[in-house]
Amino acid sequence: MYAREKKVPVGISNRHIHLSQGDLARLFGRDYSLTPYRYLIGKQFAAKETVKIIGPKGSFDKVRILGPIRTHSQVEVLLSDSYKLGVKVPLRQSGELEDTPGIEVVGPCNKIQLSQGLICAKRHIHMPSQIARILGVKDKESVNVKTVGNRSLIFEKVLIRVRDDFDYELHIDIDEANAANLQNDNLVEIYK
Amino acid sequence: MYAREKKVPVGISNRHIHLSQGDLARLFGRDYSLTPYRYLIGKQFAAKETVKIIGPKGSFDKVRILGPIRTHSQVEVLLSDSYKLGVKVPLRQSGELEDTPGIEVVGPCNKIQLSQGLICAKRHIHMPSQIARILGVKDKESVNVKTVGNRSLIFEKVLIRVRDDFDYELHIDIDEANAANLQNDNLVEIYK
Repeated sequence: MYAREKKVPVGISNRHIHLSQGDLARLFGRDYSLTPYRYLIGKQFAAKETVKIIGPKGSFDKVRILGPIRTHSQVEVLLSDSYKLGVKVPLRQSGELEDTPGIEVVGPCNKIQLSQGLICAKRHIHMPSQIARILGVKDKESVNVKTVGNRSLIFEKVLIRVRDDFDYELHIDIDEANAANLQNDNLVEIYK
Repeated sequence: MYAREKKVPVGISNRHIHLSQGDLARLFGRDYSLTPYRYLIGKQFAAKETVKIIGPKGSFDKVRILGPIRTHSQVEVLLSDSYKLGVKVPLRQSGELEDTPGIEVVGPCNKIQLSQGLICAKRHIHMPSQIARILGVKDKESVNVKTVGNRSLIFEKVLIRVRDDFDYELHIDIDEANAANLQNDNLVEIYK
């Protein structure tokens, strides 16, 4: 049976940073709170505030902070950023920060050296439990995703993340979006 | 029957430019000839010389010239460069330049406005005719290519280019290489 729930909209990430309360305070001052300027999925938002990140070889200005505050700071960059930063960036699931490299982060009040948290995010699909039931998939399972168009491809090893507080969306980064010539909100198809 | 010829090495392209004799003369001076600094496949080489390309919104310095001279100048950029240049770049097979946008190119002697030739190259496999026979594929046919690793995927619509003067190689750009976490000379597999 064909389920229309197999079609999932694409959400494309550029490099960004999630901050802990402590790191936010160190970078922006005590009791500072982020100002949302665009809501993403669920309660996630892109903040007005940006920081600079500095690697051993190069840096990026205006790296967007994504809110809300997290338990641990995490910097998500593109694999193509590795060369400019001069750091080999590991491919990780969000939150899996053991043995990841650190990076220097500069805010308006201070600069801090994160001891870890620099990753390239594994592509993944956020999915409410109702859709997971219809598709017969489980949290942390991997699926394939087929795209269409002039650079069509099949992404393998796409991680399912079942969460009822997030919208249904495939998260890929800019490198992956360009390789497949995809835009935000294009529909792609899950198959196991 | 499994043919070991299905395994093809990866060659990754960054943005670059091919110049006609006339455009080379305009940019670098009369009777100028390019200096190879690294040979690629066949007689193709990366030249020591670079140029600047300027779009309506932004520019790139040090765009490598690839030799030898061609009949028509052609500028190959990444889809991710479209945003910085401020030009919508079409996905094209090399040499198919009809109705493609132009761009400004700056060399040491002069700047010129190309009236066309700005493309993002379609991924393709250069293949000697002997390998094409073994695999049972024809020039201009499309195949799929499967990669392995932590960002494994299947590229669809990979164009076969049968040429006996080129080495056997899958040509993808940096966006595609990063999306699949591939390095130069990694082996990937063709299937129809």
